[in-house]
Amino acid sequence: RIMRPDDANIAGNVHGGTILKMIEEAGAIISTRHCNSQAGEPSVAALARVERTDFLSPMCIGEVANVSAEITYTSRHSVEVQVNVMSENILTGAKKVTNKATLWYVPLSLKNVNKVLEVPPIQYARKEQEDEGKKRYEEQKLDRLETKQRNGDVILPVINPEPHTVGYSQSSLIHLVGPSDCTLLGFVHGGVTMKLMDEVAGIVAARHCKTNIVTASVDAINFHEKIKKGCVITVSGRMTFTSNKSMEIEVFVDADPFVDEPRERYRAVSAFFTYVSLSKEGKPLAVPQLLTETEDEKRRFEEGKGRYLQTKAKRQAQMQQAAQ
Amino acid sequence: RIMRPDDANIAGNVHGGTILKMIEEAGAIISTRHCNSQAGEPSVAALARVERTDFLSPMCIGEVANVSAEITYTSRHSVEVQVNVMSENILTGAKKVTNKATLWYVPLSLKNVNKVLEVPPIQYARKEQEDEGKKRYEEQKLDRLETKQRNGDVILPVINPEPHTVGYSQSSLIHLVGPSDCTLLGFVHGGVTMKLMDEVAGIVAARHCKTNIVTASVDAINFHEKIKKGCVITVSGRMTFTSNKSMEIEVFVDADPFVDEPRERYRAVSAFFTYVSLSKEGKPLAVPQLLTETEDEKRRFEEGKGRYLQTKAKRQAQMQQAAQ
Amino acid sequence: RIMRPDDANIAGNVHGGTILKMIEEAGAIISTRHCNSQAGEPSVAALARVERTDFLSPMCIGEVANVSAEITYTSRHSVEVQVNVMSENILTGAKKVTNKATLWYVPLSLKNVNKVLEVPPIQYARKEQEDEGKKRYEEQKLDRLETKQRNGDVILPVINPEPHTVGYSQSSLIHLVGPSDCTLLGFVHGGVTMKLMDEVAGIVAARHCKTNIVTASVDAINFHEKIKKGCVITVSGRMTFTSNKSMEIEVFVDADPFVDEPRERYRAVSAFFTYVSLSKEGKPLAVPQLLTETEDEKRRFEEGKGRYLQTKAKRQAQMQQAAQ
Repeated sequence: RIMRPDDANIAGNVHGGTILKMIEEAGAIISTRHCNSQAGEPSVAALARVERTDFLSPMCIGEVANVSAEITYTSRHSVEVQVNVMSENILTGAKKVTNKATLWYVPLSLKNVNKVLEVPPIQYARKEQEDEGKKRYEEQKLDRLETKQRNGDVILPVINPEPHTVGYSQSSLIHLVGPSDCTLLGFVHGGVTMKLMDEVAGIVAARHCKTNIVTASVDAINFHEKIKKGCVITVSGRMTFTSNKSMEIEVFVDADPFVDEPRERYRAVSAFFTYVSLSKEGKPLAVPQLLTETEDEKRRFEEGKGRYLQTKAKRQAQMQQAAQ
Repeated sequence: RIMRPDDANIAGNVHGGTILKMIEEAGAIISTRHCNSQAGEPSVAALARVERTDFLSPMCIGEVANVSAEITYTSRHSVEVQVNVMSENILTGAKKVTNKATLWYVPLSLKNVNKVLEVPPIQYARKEQEDEGKKRYEEQKLDRLETKQRNGDVILPVINPEPHTVGYSQSSLIHLVGPSDCTLLGFVHGGVTMKLMDEVAGIVAARHCKTNIVTASVDAINFHEKIKKGCVITVSGRMTFTSNKSMEIEVFVDADPFVDEPRERYRAVSAFFTYVSLSKEGKPLAVPQLLTETEDEKRRFEEGKGRYLQTKAKRQAQMQQAAQ
Repeated sequence: RIMRPDDANIAGNVHGGTILKMIEEAGAIISTRHCNSQAGEPSVAALARVERTDFLSPMCIGEVANVSAEITYTSRHSVEVQVNVMSENILTGAKKVTNKATLWYVPLSLKNVNKVLEVPPIQYARKEQEDEGKKRYEEQKLDRLETKQRNGDVILPVINPEPHTVGYSQSSLIHLVGPSDCTLLGFVHGGVTMKLMDEVAGIVAARHCKTNIVTASVDAINFHEKIKKGCVITVSGRMTFTSNKSMEIEVFVDADPFVDEPRERYRAVSAFFTYVSLSKEGKPLAVPQLLTETEDEKRRFEEGKGRYLQTKAKRQAQMQQAAQ
């Protein structure tokens, strides 16, 4: 579809959140279709996890987004989907790869939302494809368990913060979940959640560096808990790390089923977003260093540095491999 | 994309206007891409006309709309696009053809919106395809001239109308044209206009019969004049004809460039929409007969009857042909 | 959240209606949460009234709106909420107070929408806070009764009106109430209604003065009757008074439960909006004087003048008090 002014920031760059939402919709369609391809109990595929996703080149207002999706692996209860996004300038014909994302879905019964159904197996062209898929499946399963433990943190407000401290840029928004945010089962689309997370992370980044910012990448996101229609969700973000030219922001999503539910507010999702700041010519700008004050902030900064260096090393290894 | 509650009425049927908007967006993308496929002045394809479009089967919330578009003819300054819409129930896998629409676009220069550029010719597989396309092109050109003359009419308000008269159900809405309604040239997308027209026509139909209604077909729509960002548009509808089970509504779109512009309000588009009323089981219901009062209303009723009988005869001829 | 192009007019000023909608959403969330804070029948807080609200400074595209809400008084069956809106330019860090609004909510049972539940009392830091709250509660109750009686008026259409008369700028729109407009109870959010009212009032103001306009204030709005999903609402506005630099517009909301309901069209809300016209530099411009023709128009003009002078006197008294 054609990118509109509301999909973009004032510099004309399409929000990462808009793209994540399109990716998730494509993934939900293909995996729901697959899970219902054999006779049996009807199901709706729910997003369980998105692997780390890089934004390879910015998309602009007026360009057309081409989204394609393919199922690359199935386990007994989950589907791995590969989604590619290309931006196309229909005036010049220029096309660019914007994103390559990997998503995991789980089929939930349409009649009983707490029942996970079985996934029809796909055929692999080569045995190695199945083996590699299985490896990816085991890896993401481990990672999901780990993040579940990390999830207890809360963002507290800070009075009169100094510029460039964590408290200075931290932000949160609340959103009342409406019908168009939800699937047939009455739960929030993963893509809607990711769009809100990107919105908050973008505000944190812009408050910190005061210049035009764009989403550079999103770390793996695990969807631990479903969010129901009628909930109020609070999305909070705080900066955890800055390199010379990038900012890492941690985002939490809390759901508050405040009507007709005995349940307490709970943590539904958390993730790390990385932003860069771009000049008018599209060149990356230096960003102010994050000032850490408390012990926790210093620890999170070091952890962010670890993720940053790991990603950098991985990218360099890939480039060397590609060059050989 | 997946149909959401906001795309549909309370009975769960997707609004004809939502479908028309998707059709037009697909047409605008493919024709703009084609018009810029050769070196030269960049252009944006503007919708000039939509041929009569039937809604063959209703689409529902939760279904996926598959839209495909193909260029079927090019004249020197215009492009004919054929767009097909299929509804897919991703739970059952059932697919149905919802619409087959034909649209005409004209490339306008990105630098000078009043300049119509030349269209790169397409290659035809067979000579007859070109000849048939040329015939369609000549026919629509004639029809465009005709409707331009009919366009002077105005809908006057009626005080305390009787049930089932024209004045009883006539309706109008105003809409302030925002950035997301517009193309790169700053003019309203034809699809946005058609969605508003369907909204008004649907309200007229529901006011008349007080039951659940769906769009059955749209007569050829000619876009005589562009509408600029910042205009207020008034969309008015009045019932012109009823058969036993269908209602015909005439819709006018007037644009009012009311801020910082010396120009007067002008008629931009007009068209006929046909609606049917459906029971909960999806069966067509009888509709109350339209009560005509003035000479003009009686004349318009007879004209509507003419269009109705002509369409009916054409459809029977097609069915006989198909049966042979 | 960040203000987008669709939230604003073509001069980049955010519509008053967008801000009113955010205010109401914040109020609905905090009061629903409060009313469900004790064990008992679950309820949804419905907007009953908004006190007079001034727009202290304009908000622009790209700025972040910070909305905070606090419960300031509870009676047996109603909750008073104070909502503050700040605009923040995240590039410069500049913050401005945009609005201070007071809203009244009533908890309706989730199981039986016609049953008003009891509100858990709040604790007051000082006895005077409770006394002042009670005084505000009694005052608004009186005012609600009064406006209920005023509510019978209808806006009649005028053929070929002269510029700057009442008939020249009067406008109305219709809107089909969709799922996203509604609360969990299936009734229209007060904020959605106020956004439509601001849209119509803004079009009336712009038609009158033909220049860029912004909402300056909204008089107290009473929500007499709920509006159900599937209704068509007609929002009509007419100018009642002009001072040198401001325009007062009266807005009516009528609901038409036209499908499968025996009920007649009814008046749901009415209110007065005040607009000013701004130059490109943000300075207030002189507006053309309203030409009154009928006796009713002259009377309404005088009443509007009364409200204008009263507000002016009140503001001057406040400024003197503040200066002491």
